[in-house]
Amino acid sequence: MKERGLIQVYTGDGKGKSTAAIGQAVRAAGHGFKVGFVSFFKDPEAFGCGEYEPLQKLGIKTSFFARRHPHFYKDLSFDEVRWECLRGLEFIKGLFADETWDMLVLDEINIAMREGFLKEEEVLSLLELKPQKLELILTGRGATEGIIGKADLVSEIKEVKHPYEQGIGGREGIEY
Amino acid sequence: MKERGLIQVYTGDGKGKSTAAIGQAVRAAGHGFKVGFVSFFKDPEAFGCGEYEPLQKLGIKTSFFARRHPHFYKDLSFDEVRWECLRGLEFIKGLFADETWDMLVLDEINIAMREGFLKEEEVLSLLELKPQKLELILTGRGATEGIIGKADLVSEIKEVKHPYEQGIGGREGIEY
Repeated sequence: MKERGLIQVYTGDGKGKSTAAIGQAVRAAGHGFKVGFVSFFKDPEAFGCGEYEPLQKLGIKTSFFARRHPHFYKDLSFDEVRWECLRGLEFIKGLFADETWDMLVLDEINIAMREGFLKEEEVLSLLELKPQKLELILTGRGATEGIIGKADLVSEIKEVKHPYEQGIGGREGIEY
Repeated sequence: MKERGLIQVYTGDGKGKSTAAIGQAVRAAGHGFKVGFVSFFKDPEAFGCGEYEPLQKLGIKTSFFARRHPHFYKDLSFDEVRWECLRGLEFIKGLFADETWDMLVLDEINIAMREGFLKEEEVLSLLELKPQKLELILTGRGATEGIIGKADLVSEIKEVKHPYEQGIGGREGIEY
């Protein structure tokens, strides 16, 4: 990766945010870049690993924090999830310090902020540490004003039409 | 892939349409689905094959029609490009008839319609032939009303903020 890497954000209520981040990671890996994919609130074991196995096959490193979302796991306390999210933040700081990465995806990190597990200022402080050349991609609905202000490129995915009304929920291999 | 496959559309002026389609293809391939990726106006040889090599490595079949867009190749006639797009349409019909495919991406086919190389009714007729189980993904800005009407799931990617204003254009490994 040459020159300055950007901060990209994929947000909005439509389908395609993490999906676009996967596409970005795959494209970058295809150019021989060193790519990491750090997910929040995704549990590859619980939902099958449809998207992660192929990423790993392409040499993209994956890592998961706060795999369980309290919305689905009622026994999880706020503090446990916050602790997991903070662990994720420290892990990402470590990757930044390494300075060998060309692209990092922080998948669903916006959700962590939106739901208060991470404070906006904690993530903004992290962004200050981004190595010059690193392309950083943040996904998740509800990106905060501060994050949008700090980002170079923001895409909002709007749901124009959705088949939930037809009674179709999340489908293996398509939505996860 | 089980039950009925949907028609998905990624449209809008923001970054991430083809990128999301790549992500969809990768995720589906990760579940062992048979996936094809048919692109219009993309020339893997001209722009490097950052996104196509990894797709092929994952067993996703790729195919390219109307690789050159007359916007960039002024010597191309409208009729030549239309012919190429029609060839693409026939090829896709063949894949439909095969009925073994779980997912097909028709990348930038909306552009072909938007610019008149394909007529909306030609693509709508094609959609009538979609096998029941096939998940079909159409990308490109300017999806027509007819296509949106026919689709099950439509995501519009809006450009909220873009670094072109900072003088940053398309970057290898990121935009292509």
